[in-house]
Amino acid sequence: MPMMTGEAYRTSLLDGRRCYIDGELIRDPADHPLLKTAVASVAGTYDRFYDPSPDAYHPMYTIPRTREDMDKRVAALGRSDITAGTTAACMALVEVAPELGKLRPEYRDRVYEFFDWCRTNDVRCSEAITDAKGNRKKRPSQQDDRDAYVRVVDRTREGIVIRGAKLHITGAPLVHEQVVLPTKSMKPGEEEYAVACSVPSNAEGLKIVNTTNAPRGDGDLRHFPISGRTNMPEGLLIFDDVFVPNERVFLDGEVSHAASLAHALGLWERSNAVAYSGSSADRLVGLAALLAEMNGAADRADIRDLLSQMAIFATMCRAGWEAAMANATQNDDGAPLPASLYISASKFYNAELHGQMVDILHDIAGTLLVEAPSMADYDNEEIGEDIREHLAGESGWSAQDRLKLLHYVRDLTADTYGGWIAVTESLAGGGQYAQRLVTLRHFDLNNAKELARKAVGLEVGA
Amino acid sequence: MPMMTGEAYRTSLLDGRRCYIDGELIRDPADHPLLKTAVASVAGTYDRFYDPSPDAYHPMYTIPRTREDMDKRVAALGRSDITAGTTAACMALVEVAPELGKLRPEYRDRVYEFFDWCRTNDVRCSEAITDAKGNRKKRPSQQDDRDAYVRVVDRTREGIVIRGAKLHITGAPLVHEQVVLPTKSMKPGEEEYAVACSVPSNAEGLKIVNTTNAPRGDGDLRHFPISGRTNMPEGLLIFDDVFVPNERVFLDGEVSHAASLAHALGLWERSNAVAYSGSSADRLVGLAALLAEMNGAADRADIRDLLSQMAIFATMCRAGWEAAMANATQNDDGAPLPASLYISASKFYNAELHGQMVDILHDIAGTLLVEAPSMADYDNEEIGEDIREHLAGESGWSAQDRLKLLHYVRDLTADTYGGWIAVTESLAGGGQYAQRLVTLRHFDLNNAKELARKAVGLEVGA
Amino acid sequence: MPMMTGEAYRTSLLDGRRCYIDGELIRDPADHPLLKTAVASVAGTYDRFYDPSPDAYHPMYTIPRTREDMDKRVAALGRSDITAGTTAACMALVEVAPELGKLRPEYRDRVYEFFDWCRTNDVRCSEAITDAKGNRKKRPSQQDDRDAYVRVVDRTREGIVIRGAKLHITGAPLVHEQVVLPTKSMKPGEEEYAVACSVPSNAEGLKIVNTTNAPRGDGDLRHFPISGRTNMPEGLLIFDDVFVPNERVFLDGEVSHAASLAHALGLWERSNAVAYSGSSADRLVGLAALLAEMNGAADRADIRDLLSQMAIFATMCRAGWEAAMANATQNDDGAPLPASLYISASKFYNAELHGQMVDILHDIAGTLLVEAPSMADYDNEEIGEDIREHLAGESGWSAQDRLKLLHYVRDLTADTYGGWIAVTESLAGGGQYAQRLVTLRHFDLNNAKELARKAVGLEVGA
Amino acid sequence: MPMMTGEAYRTSLLDGRRCYIDGELIRDPADHPLLKTAVASVAGTYDRFYDPSPDAYHPMYTIPRTREDMDKRVAALGRSDITAGTTAACMALVEVAPELGKLRPEYRDRVYEFFDWCRTNDVRCSEAITDAKGNRKKRPSQQDDRDAYVRVVDRTREGIVIRGAKLHITGAPLVHEQVVLPTKSMKPGEEEYAVACSVPSNAEGLKIVNTTNAPRGDGDLRHFPISGRTNMPEGLLIFDDVFVPNERVFLDGEVSHAASLAHALGLWERSNAVAYSGSSADRLVGLAALLAEMNGAADRADIRDLLSQMAIFATMCRAGWEAAMANATQNDDGAPLPASLYISASKFYNAELHGQMVDILHDIAGTLLVEAPSMADYDNEEIGEDIREHLAGESGWSAQDRLKLLHYVRDLTADTYGGWIAVTESLAGGGQYAQRLVTLRHFDLNNAKELARKAVGLEVGA
Repeated sequence: MPMMTGEAYRTSLLDGRRCYIDGELIRDPADHPLLKTAVASVAGTYDRFYDPSPDAYHPMYTIPRTREDMDKRVAALGRSDITAGTTAACMALVEVAPELGKLRPEYRDRVYEFFDWCRTNDVRCSEAITDAKGNRKKRPSQQDDRDAYVRVVDRTREGIVIRGAKLHITGAPLVHEQVVLPTKSMKPGEEEYAVACSVPSNAEGLKIVNTTNAPRGDGDLRHFPISGRTNMPEGLLIFDDVFVPNERVFLDGEVSHAASLAHALGLWERSNAVAYSGSSADRLVGLAALLAEMNGAADRADIRDLLSQMAIFATMCRAGWEAAMANATQNDDGAPLPASLYISASKFYNAELHGQMVDILHDIAGTLLVEAPSMADYDNEEIGEDIREHLAGESGWSAQDRLKLLHYVRDLTADTYGGWIAVTESLAGGGQYAQRLVTLRHFDLNNAKELARKAVGLEVGA
Repeated sequence: MPMMTGEAYRTSLLDGRRCYIDGELIRDPADHPLLKTAVASVAGTYDRFYDPSPDAYHPMYTIPRTREDMDKRVAALGRSDITAGTTAACMALVEVAPELGKLRPEYRDRVYEFFDWCRTNDVRCSEAITDAKGNRKKRPSQQDDRDAYVRVVDRTREGIVIRGAKLHITGAPLVHEQVVLPTKSMKPGEEEYAVACSVPSNAEGLKIVNTTNAPRGDGDLRHFPISGRTNMPEGLLIFDDVFVPNERVFLDGEVSHAASLAHALGLWERSNAVAYSGSSADRLVGLAALLAEMNGAADRADIRDLLSQMAIFATMCRAGWEAAMANATQNDDGAPLPASLYISASKFYNAELHGQMVDILHDIAGTLLVEAPSMADYDNEEIGEDIREHLAGESGWSAQDRLKLLHYVRDLTADTYGGWIAVTESLAGGGQYAQRLVTLRHFDLNNAKELARKAVGLEVGA
Repeated sequence: MPMMTGEAYRTSLLDGRRCYIDGELIRDPADHPLLKTAVASVAGTYDRFYDPSPDAYHPMYTIPRTREDMDKRVAALGRSDITAGTTAACMALVEVAPELGKLRPEYRDRVYEFFDWCRTNDVRCSEAITDAKGNRKKRPSQQDDRDAYVRVVDRTREGIVIRGAKLHITGAPLVHEQVVLPTKSMKPGEEEYAVACSVPSNAEGLKIVNTTNAPRGDGDLRHFPISGRTNMPEGLLIFDDVFVPNERVFLDGEVSHAASLAHALGLWERSNAVAYSGSSADRLVGLAALLAEMNGAADRADIRDLLSQMAIFATMCRAGWEAAMANATQNDDGAPLPASLYISASKFYNAELHGQMVDILHDIAGTLLVEAPSMADYDNEEIGEDIREHLAGESGWSAQDRLKLLHYVRDLTADTYGGWIAVTESLAGGGQYAQRLVTLRHFDLNNAKELARKAVGLEVGA
Repeated sequence: MPMMTGEAYRTSLLDGRRCYIDGELIRDPADHPLLKTAVASVAGTYDRFYDPSPDAYHPMYTIPRTREDMDKRVAALGRSDITAGTTAACMALVEVAPELGKLRPEYRDRVYEFFDWCRTNDVRCSEAITDAKGNRKKRPSQQDDRDAYVRVVDRTREGIVIRGAKLHITGAPLVHEQVVLPTKSMKPGEEEYAVACSVPSNAEGLKIVNTTNAPRGDGDLRHFPISGRTNMPEGLLIFDDVFVPNERVFLDGEVSHAASLAHALGLWERSNAVAYSGSSADRLVGLAALLAEMNGAADRADIRDLLSQMAIFATMCRAGWEAAMANATQNDDGAPLPASLYISASKFYNAELHGQMVDILHDIAGTLLVEAPSMADYDNEEIGEDIREHLAGESGWSAQDRLKLLHYVRDLTADTYGGWIAVTESLAGGGQYAQRLVTLRHFDLNNAKELARKAVGLEVGA
């Protein structure tokens, strides 16, 4: 089956799916003012890799085996949310497949078949993991609302029926398959919640309610140079007794393995974040350096010092990824696993310091960051000339370039998109407290204690 | 002369001023989609204090003499930007008046006359201090563009003519008088830049280019509960050879006193920020506590710990203001001066930690903060019921209250308004590096050195 | 009864008390190499305030009623550990006396009688609060060792018998009375642990095992300018069935009031720490400024910036105390209570940042801090001249003054005494986690929530 | 020439060198109370690697070529200061040799000959780099004291004569050769200061004044389990017109290359610190875990959270080294270069957070850390039993093991040795400000700016 073009992709979304935004049913995502940019961006990832030969498939479906594979992949794909999500969902399943196979061989087979089907049909998947949760102190089975976590409510010879809701599903209205995974470990008695499966976006009984970080602003995209190009919707999936055929069920009741899937997805999500954290941080340093230059402050000692703090941040972000790759392992089927310990520590480090780095960036930028005149002011006959004179920057920076830079940094860090990014990037995969505990779980505390016992001269292994 | 009503205020803005926004001349601020809320809010401060008796005047024109005066004032006025700006500008002038009087007695007289005129006519003023600046490493007189700092370009028997631009003027299109002050200390040879005066908003040759933090979003103000009510424009003032009559000139060429005015304004601006920092921080703690409750996490030890960090922050913010008032002094004419040392240290502390506190708030809120469904989704017939079920919070929080809370916190901290506030509050009055140096200037370093010398046993006073 | 002179104090210690240090019984504290400095220092506080008139008493026994009283007291007493301890123990009892009186009137009477007795006899007291504790996750009554917390093991008509151990008792071998207080709240069933009383240091069955931060070094006190003069022992009190007569029993079995005493002592301990934190921080700033001067770096921008960070720290420490005093309250008998909220927040702030301030101090000092030649090297004929040449500092700093300063700062921050201080000051009264929770307990969270509810537009008081 | 045994090493120190400590000339380091432990420790590194075959040499003289070589080396040598110093000094010379060779071929030859000579004679070297410096704002040539930086004062056909002082020379009285390197870049006109050479410790005119972190305490080494075993002296080298023969002169007047040597040494010093930072941090985590266990608090959520913060710190330290090795390069002669950028960023990160980690350790330990009874108390007949009862820890920790652990952690972090380590480790190679600037120098800021320009849509390469 040949790959899809961007055009084919657009058409593929007209499959009867029930997607909503701002209280209205979406007729055609490709034509909706708040979604069309996102659709265009995904279509672009189709066109860019399109190859008409019948055996061709998208490079994200090549399982990387070496560090070089990984580097190429990171460079080729970029941090496109849909592609990243498809990768994370599929890789998590593939990762855990050998283990699932020990449980029930058909689980392993179904995973590989699903992976092949996705590759062959050139589809995109979401990672549907976070449940509505209800009371966070209670177990799924103790909630007042039994549907607070997605669960199996019925079972036939042909498949299962699921009910509940999943939150924060990136790109939900733009993918073909919603890959449903349990959000955390389950205990005996919670069999109904230990469910993993894949559901087509147009499945009967599935509704998708969306929000987006697309700009709703003044219509002049020069003020939204990032969010105007790279926004992405996030969906709330409502499963109202959705039937899932057996061949798309990857876990059904085996509570012992619910956590494995959640952890595998978590690792890939975090890995994706860490892989791009270095270049993202480098860009931040670069923006700060340009802002300093523009303000005629690039050589001031205090500004150099701020830049050096950002440079250290960027370097440590890179170091985390380097270490995770240098210590990567493989599962039984040869699929790669970046080292969890480095990935989770780096993820924490990045989220912990990101806000401070943005504060530094703002400190260098100055208040003009949020109060720069609009491009329409710049174009205006009566005041444009004044703006060109009074807002020209130093070191040859024209007012136009200066405004471009300011609007870019505002969009990235001090406006709707910036707020969205700050919240989602730091909280994706759990808050900082959870991240710390995940790291401690991966850390060899016993080894550290033995080291300490030996140093102190206490009986070792006690 | 009687006080103005809100209605009279609205009318008073139709005085021929040349104000622009988004590249267009503003006909009537009270009727402009991006300004009318701000105008209504200022009109409200007129109506709320309106008193028809001929001698009545607005309480902000009462110079506080005691701690109680100060507390009442803080409680009565709230942190309304226009009122705060008027207060800061007038108080800074009054503060420095005795000192200016030693220089030239008429300066002191003019300041008090201006203050009386403002009070009698019930007008509002801006604080126009920040210059366009150009190259920050060069002195005003060394800039390529001689007009990078506002300066006197001509002088007649009746007054002076000024040229240049002032940035970041809060509420500029909504005030009656633009109070122009020098942005920093000046040196001999820079007499033309040592200028303080007041200019009516409709002065010939003055143009005001504006931006705003008013929401441009989806029109549903339920999504912008703060910014939809309390937004304020910021103006870029362009002085294109504006004439200022002598009676409105408070400094003209005395470089020795340029810094006094800048410092006095800085003190009042910072004082205003510090005075409200405690209650603003308390609100943040309260929001965090509600979010925790809503998520069923209010009793979790890690969440309690996060709340305690926020409570400490709020308490230290209050402590700064308490200490500044407990150590306040008075100028020669009896006008009060909150203690600069405490004000500047507290301002720094607040700005330094504010970002971390917001990070904690986000950590408690979770990703739903930016991805909450819209109120239109909630109202929708097909999906509203699902949202009411799946988004109901814990501890009896209905989905509606939960959405209200989430949209409020998003508007305050993770959207356009939040970004604006974060940048302007931390940078108003200079970045953190400048704040630190200001504090060091107020700190009695010699005393500290003597303490240390005595402790070490070195010759004291060496 | 007249006050004691220093000499009388020395003699008063020869009362048969069983004190140990380094595995040996101490014959005469005033003559022991590791204790004599501490004794001399306490004797000094007797001599300094000695007044032969029969009604005279030490100023620490004047209960302060006003802010001025408090300031005078802080200035007069200095942070002498024994005096501070006596104050805290007595003030805590006096604080809670009215409340105890409601429980049993004789408790209140005994407290005031004890206070009068202490004042009249000019004695010094310890604050014996921390229990050995055992397993921190278990309640006192659940410990394997029933004596892990001090408890009443017998009761006669004349008094009670107590058993157990108290840790970290500052100045224990140098005081006359050990004031025993419960370490925390107790619950029904733990009556035996709800005990407060006072025990003379030479009570039958009491043993005191001591450690000290006195220098054990090279005997040249020029290398230990602080610890050689102001060291203080800390004792472990072992109560081996010690009888306490009724008139010294202030609580016996009323579990409801165990926490009040612990909290009252905690407040006075923390208050004492906070009262001196400002001047202590100022001294740190002064030392840093001198070190910078000595290294010829006082004008460097990066060094000025470091100094400004320290100055802000010192200022916020002072602000905490100012706010606590400005918001002080009084108990039913008129005894003053610095505001708990500000005290605990300031205590946390100080401990949290103190380490960073010391790091800055070290950064300015450079490695010479710990590697400065000894004063004997300086005196040596062969190498003294070289040291005088090569270690002379800038700005006229002689090598001698430079060495003096370096040895002072090393003793204060990077040697035995420094380590002791860092640990005890930050942990006295519980670790930082406990401090945070204490602050949250004093913080009006409900008010904050109401503020937030009102702001969001939710039903208030819900 | 065969390798030396430990015994031979001891004897080799009796070569007439003029070493001082505490104002006295040292007769025999191996027999001096403050030096003998250090000598024994170095002797141990001789005995451990001793091989009688004539061609054998110490493994530190094998230049590592691969990551595996490097790992083995790190594991084999441990962080013994003398070995590390010898390595750093020799590797720095070897590193720069090709570059020096381009300047004058004999420089390169001499370096390799010196390296061979050191290897063959099995000697140890110091890294003598830091000058006395004088006024840090003035260049070497502008100092009042021309000898503030070591310089060439005379030159003969056979060699040069140097004068001045070098500070902070680790192990100076215990090495055979003092490798003198310029402390920083030099400018034209400062030729006399651009000098690198090696001087035997017993050279005529060389005096070495020492300090040490060896315990001077109570003689019971159970209280100094680390510093009693691994202390090391630091010397102040005074060059009083010392003659250096040509074959030991590696740079003489070529100001262009002074910085290369300083940077090469800096890289190796920092690399050594970073290489061991991971295991050192792991040990810290282990100690914290044991302390928590001992206090019965290992399962408390707040303690787990503190441990996780330490685990993240340890992991990021390791990540820095992993990244530096994964990105290592080689010089023209094949000698390896860990990637400077990662090394300097990691060094900064480690020093920045180390203090916080120690604070956490202390928080978990509690005040008993500095107030634990002495081992003599434990041994005492009268009170030993009480101590065994009251100080027994949880989870089966005996009082003895508990005291062992407490004394170990105190020695490591809260006593003389701890203070020394904290200061020297964080400041070795310059303070944190310098470390930041070094990182910025290695960071590709132009690349970051191009990334940013491209993202913003500005002309690239402008």
